[in-house]
Amino acid sequence: MARRSLSLGKVYGLLEPGPVVLLTTAGSERPNIMTMSWHTMLEFEPPIVGCIISDHNYSFNLLDASGECVINIPAAEMAEKVVGCGNTSGADTDKFAAFRLTPLPAALVGAPLIAECHANLECRITDRQMVPSYNLFILEVVKAWIDPAVKQPRTLHHRGYGNFMVSGETIRLRSKMK
Amino acid sequence: MARRSLSLGKVYGLLEPGPVVLLTTAGSERPNIMTMSWHTMLEFEPPIVGCIISDHNYSFNLLDASGECVINIPAAEMAEKVVGCGNTSGADTDKFAAFRLTPLPAALVGAPLIAECHANLECRITDRQMVPSYNLFILEVVKAWIDPAVKQPRTLHHRGYGNFMVSGETIRLRSKMK
Repeated sequence: MARRSLSLGKVYGLLEPGPVVLLTTAGSERPNIMTMSWHTMLEFEPPIVGCIISDHNYSFNLLDASGECVINIPAAEMAEKVVGCGNTSGADTDKFAAFRLTPLPAALVGAPLIAECHANLECRITDRQMVPSYNLFILEVVKAWIDPAVKQPRTLHHRGYGNFMVSGETIRLRSKMK
Repeated sequence: MARRSLSLGKVYGLLEPGPVVLLTTAGSERPNIMTMSWHTMLEFEPPIVGCIISDHNYSFNLLDASGECVINIPAAEMAEKVVGCGNTSGADTDKFAAFRLTPLPAALVGAPLIAECHANLECRITDRQMVPSYNLFILEVVKAWIDPAVKQPRTLHHRGYGNFMVSGETIRLRSKMK
């Protein structure tokens, strides 16, 4: 796979449709992976993303301590690994090993990219004011990678209790909206 | 259409997949409609939703003044109306009239439901602390309605510049995740 850099102004088109993502963090023992669906764009460029990470999750402290993470976007073919990462805890599981996922070094942050994902967004925390009340971290995407061969990614979108909608056809309409 | 009440604990399954929504607000002259893709769940029950509404939008002041809105979820068949609502301003357009949409009275808020949408979430603002920095309103869903005949809604998911992904097939996996 030829991973290439994506201009930061185009990042919102990856996250705005609401895909399930895999959030990776660095740790003193090993990196971790968390499955996440609660996120939203907050600003176009530089891309600012709000992510809700419960303090019950093992990733909460890893993210809070390091201030960095990677948002990796998986395709539908990875659905079982995505659910597996959501049903286990980094407290007792090496998820890269358990789900046969490949960590790659990121360019600007300590957390790893997941090689099997078609898009990877390197992020740094820029604002923690909403963490105490909502577990809401404000992240800036500082580097973005995509697989240019994937034109219409089949992303996963969680409807609850293990039901996932897989992205379908694309339609185009004349729009003034960014 | 037989609209029925949806238990509030099930609301997250509607918004978590990231659909484009139509946000309605009441106004002294007429109600308004705004197209919105930047939102995230923040809590399961009562359902708390974070929504980004730019202060450049006509809906910003209507929402801020009334403290109430309805989040309406349109299906793919409504794509042209959805883009139309995004490309016009309530400052000079009666969007219900212009796009032939039907306002229905809500049960608990002053903003109208859009009859043509298969799901409608009546909301009240509960927290404005993030409005100055991110135009992020924190809303509580106080009443939810769905069309029980729509089992697998074909929702729209914006990829930027008028490109919309339409929701595809649903897959089920054994999961401990809510």
